[in-house]
Amino acid sequence: MQTFERFLKESLRPRPPEVRSDPVSGQVVIIATDRALRPITAEATRTRPSDEACPFCEGHETETPPEVQARRTACSRPNGPGWTIRVVPNRFPAVIPGCPGVPANQGLFRAAPANGAHEVIIECPAHLTDTFELPTTHVEALLAVYQDRLRAHARDSRLQYGMLFKNVGAPAGASLDHAHAQFLGLPFVPERVQAELAGAQAFRRTHGRCVFCEMANDHERRVLETPHFVVIAPYASRFPFEVWLLPREHQPRFEEAPRLDDLAAACQTTLRKLKAALGDPPYNYLIHTAPWNAVDIGHYHWHIEVLPRLTLVAGFEWGTGVFINPVPPEQAAACLRDIQIGD
Amino acid sequence: MQTFERFLKESLRPRPPEVRSDPVSGQVVIIATDRALRPITAEATRTRPSDEACPFCEGHETETPPEVQARRTACSRPNGPGWTIRVVPNRFPAVIPGCPGVPANQGLFRAAPANGAHEVIIECPAHLTDTFELPTTHVEALLAVYQDRLRAHARDSRLQYGMLFKNVGAPAGASLDHAHAQFLGLPFVPERVQAELAGAQAFRRTHGRCVFCEMANDHERRVLETPHFVVIAPYASRFPFEVWLLPREHQPRFEEAPRLDDLAAACQTTLRKLKAALGDPPYNYLIHTAPWNAVDIGHYHWHIEVLPRLTLVAGFEWGTGVFINPVPPEQAAACLRDIQIGD
Repeated sequence: MQTFERFLKESLRPRPPEVRSDPVSGQVVIIATDRALRPITAEATRTRPSDEACPFCEGHETETPPEVQARRTACSRPNGPGWTIRVVPNRFPAVIPGCPGVPANQGLFRAAPANGAHEVIIECPAHLTDTFELPTTHVEALLAVYQDRLRAHARDSRLQYGMLFKNVGAPAGASLDHAHAQFLGLPFVPERVQAELAGAQAFRRTHGRCVFCEMANDHERRVLETPHFVVIAPYASRFPFEVWLLPREHQPRFEEAPRLDDLAAACQTTLRKLKAALGDPPYNYLIHTAPWNAVDIGHYHWHIEVLPRLTLVAGFEWGTGVFINPVPPEQAAACLRDIQIGD
Repeated sequence: MQTFERFLKESLRPRPPEVRSDPVSGQVVIIATDRALRPITAEATRTRPSDEACPFCEGHETETPPEVQARRTACSRPNGPGWTIRVVPNRFPAVIPGCPGVPANQGLFRAAPANGAHEVIIECPAHLTDTFELPTTHVEALLAVYQDRLRAHARDSRLQYGMLFKNVGAPAGASLDHAHAQFLGLPFVPERVQAELAGAQAFRRTHGRCVFCEMANDHERRVLETPHFVVIAPYASRFPFEVWLLPREHQPRFEEAPRLDDLAAACQTTLRKLKAALGDPPYNYLIHTAPWNAVDIGHYHWHIEVLPRLTLVAGFEWGTGVFINPVPPEQAAACLRDIQIGD
């Protein structure tokens, strides 16, 4: 892998990021040379900075770009200590505001400037790794900041979709330990969200109901329920112990969701159950909400997906787009349901 | 991860494999508890058997299921030593022949028995890890065995698609070092192949030409050419240094491809260039060919995709279906083109 590291450091020539689509399948890819500089290759993730060297810790504010939002004590100043949650532009962005143009489309090939916003939400001032072990009120404040990021960029008419996610643990793609989430404001509606939108629309047309509301009623694969949310192991889980968290009440947009107190508690219980079952697994955590500018999104139903990364994705998955999962979601749900989580 | 290992060993209840599709997006997943027993979790791949313990080495034939095909010396006997290439059923199959039925479809949920064949092609008798360092005549014989597997299962009217791939190196999903490929005969046409078929058909309808033939003429991203094949870094590469190998002549099916001598040499040069550029990267290698029973496949063009696994796939990719690639394929192609490979 060292040779690849050397290529990135010595030979890669920086270019403005581009959104490209494959002339055959339509697969969308962001080509972003700025991403090459972050410590994210499989080898590099084994030697991550300790807390003294962590750019996300309180007191190290000058090591990140200036903040775009923060929750701060009354007398603290921007980009100094005294914050509880801090949002900064990503130093290694995949999409950038006012991205310069790219060569005009040539024959087969279609590209667009990768215009957008790429931010890091630093979730706590101390060097902690597990967001969901923070107090519930803090998790609730975090969810409110996620909503703020979505609302802040929804006003930008060049952008179409806001994607919030967390990578936790090196095998799940985290390049820094310190608890953080990422936000990308994108100039397109991503493929997977388009597939969900189309599926939900088709289901409503045929059955007159919301397919996500139906899934939320899946008792065989239910993991837990709170007054306003349910957590299920989805019927076609791609990963062992994959779980989805859905609001019981039909809501297209996460950024308009009420009851963040209950949502924070539901997230915490879910992640504690996964930890108890799997021993601190690496995982990806992502929020699917409706696109900003779409007209007919009434059939969509926002949700959170948690994907534990316990198996490797290999040639079969890349070649087919089909996943092989050794754990039936019924058995994962039963295992998680049986785990009692105290306060 | 130990806790997950324990769940797999102690709590997972075996069930016949099922093909399920997600009620919202249509995402296809194979739920296969047999896969849980192989040493494929991220932790387990670090302690792989040495050559003494390798079930794929010559002399260890009893440690695999009985062979279904082999290239052998004249006086050797099936399932004993004396072979150069050996094909056996996978001990941990994702799909099985004559798979028992699954519970009838219930409401939202659609499942089908995971009927099919899952085989391992053991590529050499000695404990070698790199197929492409074997003599060219041996690689040519291997490609012919790949074709045999496709032809053997094409006759099974319950199956629709044959997928051949290799996972090389633990981070790419290999659970054993010994050079091997896998073949799956599947009861459906996988999503990614469907997308390529649809894209190629649409392109031919609009432009009257084959989109893959056009891509084969992409000189800006060309890596190498041989009398009958070209290798390119595709315009929308998902992974750094992704390369595709295409026949110059339009051919829908790999299993009917002539000139395996030239193809073997093209594969060897490609992999040697990747090794020289990247220092023995883990990679997935897969063959896309036309489905067996489809009527109109004249617009398809078989090809091989090589996907070096140098970066981690994380929350953004799983949440969007969109890949972020730090290396422009133009730069990868130039790097690979400049590497001279001798014999």
